[in-house]
Amino acid sequence: MSSTSITTITGITVDDIRFPTSKQLDGSDAMSPDPDYSSAYVIIHTDNPLLEGHGHSFTTGRGTEIVCAAIEAHRHLLIGRTLEEFISNPGAFWRHLTSDSQLRWIGPEKGAIHLGLAAIVNALWDLYAKREDKPLWRLISDLTPEQFIKCIDFRYMSDVITSDEALKMLKELEKTKSERIKQLEEQGYPAYTTSAGWLGYSDEKIQRLCREAINEGFTHLKIKVGRDLQDDIRRLKIIRQEVGYERRIMVDANQVWDVNQAIEWMKHLVEFSPYWIEEPTSPDDIIGHAKISQALKSYNIGVATGEHGMNRVLFKQMLQANALQFCQIDSCRLGGVNEVLAVLLLAAKFQVPVCPHAGGVGLCELVQHLSMIDFIVVSGTWENRITEYVDHLHEHFEDPCIIKNGRYVAPTRPGYSTQMKAFSRQQYSFPNGSIWKTNP
Amino acid sequence: MSSTSITTITGITVDDIRFPTSKQLDGSDAMSPDPDYSSAYVIIHTDNPLLEGHGHSFTTGRGTEIVCAAIEAHRHLLIGRTLEEFISNPGAFWRHLTSDSQLRWIGPEKGAIHLGLAAIVNALWDLYAKREDKPLWRLISDLTPEQFIKCIDFRYMSDVITSDEALKMLKELEKTKSERIKQLEEQGYPAYTTSAGWLGYSDEKIQRLCREAINEGFTHLKIKVGRDLQDDIRRLKIIRQEVGYERRIMVDANQVWDVNQAIEWMKHLVEFSPYWIEEPTSPDDIIGHAKISQALKSYNIGVATGEHGMNRVLFKQMLQANALQFCQIDSCRLGGVNEVLAVLLLAAKFQVPVCPHAGGVGLCELVQHLSMIDFIVVSGTWENRITEYVDHLHEHFEDPCIIKNGRYVAPTRPGYSTQMKAFSRQQYSFPNGSIWKTNP
Repeated sequence: MSSTSITTITGITVDDIRFPTSKQLDGSDAMSPDPDYSSAYVIIHTDNPLLEGHGHSFTTGRGTEIVCAAIEAHRHLLIGRTLEEFISNPGAFWRHLTSDSQLRWIGPEKGAIHLGLAAIVNALWDLYAKREDKPLWRLISDLTPEQFIKCIDFRYMSDVITSDEALKMLKELEKTKSERIKQLEEQGYPAYTTSAGWLGYSDEKIQRLCREAINEGFTHLKIKVGRDLQDDIRRLKIIRQEVGYERRIMVDANQVWDVNQAIEWMKHLVEFSPYWIEEPTSPDDIIGHAKISQALKSYNIGVATGEHGMNRVLFKQMLQANALQFCQIDSCRLGGVNEVLAVLLLAAKFQVPVCPHAGGVGLCELVQHLSMIDFIVVSGTWENRITEYVDHLHEHFEDPCIIKNGRYVAPTRPGYSTQMKAFSRQQYSFPNGSIWKTNP
Repeated sequence: MSSTSITTITGITVDDIRFPTSKQLDGSDAMSPDPDYSSAYVIIHTDNPLLEGHGHSFTTGRGTEIVCAAIEAHRHLLIGRTLEEFISNPGAFWRHLTSDSQLRWIGPEKGAIHLGLAAIVNALWDLYAKREDKPLWRLISDLTPEQFIKCIDFRYMSDVITSDEALKMLKELEKTKSERIKQLEEQGYPAYTTSAGWLGYSDEKIQRLCREAINEGFTHLKIKVGRDLQDDIRRLKIIRQEVGYERRIMVDANQVWDVNQAIEWMKHLVEFSPYWIEEPTSPDDIIGHAKISQALKSYNIGVATGEHGMNRVLFKQMLQANALQFCQIDSCRLGGVNEVLAVLLLAAKFQVPVCPHAGGVGLCELVQHLSMIDFIVVSGTWENRITEYVDHLHEHFEDPCIIKNGRYVAPTRPGYSTQMKAFSRQQYSFPNGSIWKTNP
């Protein structure tokens, strides 16, 4: 397609899509015993009937309608705008989408309004990548450092990183970019699995899933903790017996503890050598995470957080305060690709590895691109970096992620791998899809 | 009414109510040039047809429908519950309302879902106060310290304040409570006005409004800054000429600056001796506010923030980090009365004065109660404390706040002063009220 043609945004379609996952205890953790993995889903239509962008924001059932309303609320900021405006200055377009003076009140840049924004921004990047006939990771890897910088709104970041400084970092790595693209295409990006670790699974199921994970080539496994200490110890024993000590185990408390409680609880798990403790307390508590990081340092346990990290201002501070040792961006909670790129830059500046959150529905499809961009363009390394993978609901996507030997295979199809199959969207549409009509 | 009768919640009514204030530039600041002051409004109905609770969450126009959807999403957590459950343990009931495992994802405890919660919690307290036939400030002042503590969910606070410590603080002040009630009823609670300070007003209008404020007994005035430095200097000159240096002037940037920019800009305003700079940067930036506080200390300018402070975890850290010298709670952004009480306790522990944010529509009616509770029960003082007042839209309320000699008069009518007149609710209902039908 000619890059000089003008593509105008003509409409959006918003869908509330829910999968009744709560029936199987998949995804059960200390805070979320019964999620129904869901998508607040948006299609951006253009005056080119062959070109549409798909984006979504992950949710867990009830409340998806609120995020859908948040997407709808951005309609007037999109209709009549062109894809070329977005492409020529993605950062300015992002600022435009986050600066509606009335919508801003109910964030700013957090909660439902920001989740809604994320779905839209992800759809814009899908649209852009489809038009350029490239997978997103490749589209962004092919940008010049100057173009990359233009994707980012540096508002509220300049005390820690300026665009000039970021440009210098990117230029330094640009020289070796093509080597890393080759490496990635040959080897894939390192992943870890959470499949075995949900609360509520039987011991036999845990053992079986551990063995499967090893057979599939995974070297890192994560399990949920925090509901009952004795149960955590019992499950960690089982898992260590299955996977040995040459593989890494991470534990995830899903925000269930207060700060001091987190430190005390983790002392009881030291013998199992967890690589990190994830979300030990409120995701908003920078100072709390810093205290926990400090306390667990001598045990060689890192702190990981970010799946509920609401925006770049939170991540900036988490990094400033040494509050995390693993930075877990979320592709749909941050304001889509643009803000993720901002956090990748911040993390690279502080030399903290980015290990994205995934699972749910559609998140693995998205984060693979983001980790690959981090590797090729921003941090330049996959040392100590692993991206979450859960083998769940991929069959509903047009371009499902592929795992080989415990690594994400670089996507080759154009777009951001966001597009859900039309039949799945229909069937799981809430409350009128056939799945919900028959199993209300 | 007998306190042993059981009152069951039978339903909720949710309304989107908007006032077309953007037409007058009232409320125009550096980030919000054109707000339509609005309410996401809820009525909690009970099986007693004479007893209902009214609550609202303030918004600025577009997006109110998202907060209304968030209120609706809590319906299943309310219907069938009793007022007595709430009264017997308000903190546990609050935890119940914030712990829906699926809704939690789209916060947690921030943004639209938390604004929706606030409306509901405010309505519950209105219901409770009406049943006890007391204004809210008096109802809570009459609680024992033990009952007060039970209003609070201490989750994520215990590293800074425990319930035992809070109890001790409250008991210490209890002895002198009745003196302060008397003082309050005689003198009212100190207020300040923002009426003169909006961006976009002419010089003549500013001068006139300053003189009116002085005549009305105000000793503290606030103005908006941050859009244009020369304009700020010009307006501050006019205002200082009108009010002299024996009165205090506060300035409010509404988040428009980056951290270092805030420090530089404020250095140019030092000659006007601002008492505080409000919202100098992102409301989420604890470390940034701490840096600004530190830099402005030698100029004797304090930092005020909190109107966008999303929850107690943010305030906890702002206080831990010495990031604010004036704590501006918002009655509808925090999760209603319960979480406000938590922040009052935190601020008292750090000996930081609480100066609530108000204005908008209905906020003055609410915050007067909260400041009075702070004075009587929690901090025990009104030294250095002032509560915002804007003379705007009070006529729509059944129990409008009353200002005398620049002070809030203690309300006497039962409830939380939340109830909007039925006719106003009808007229300004969006999009079908008569105001919007004739002025779309």
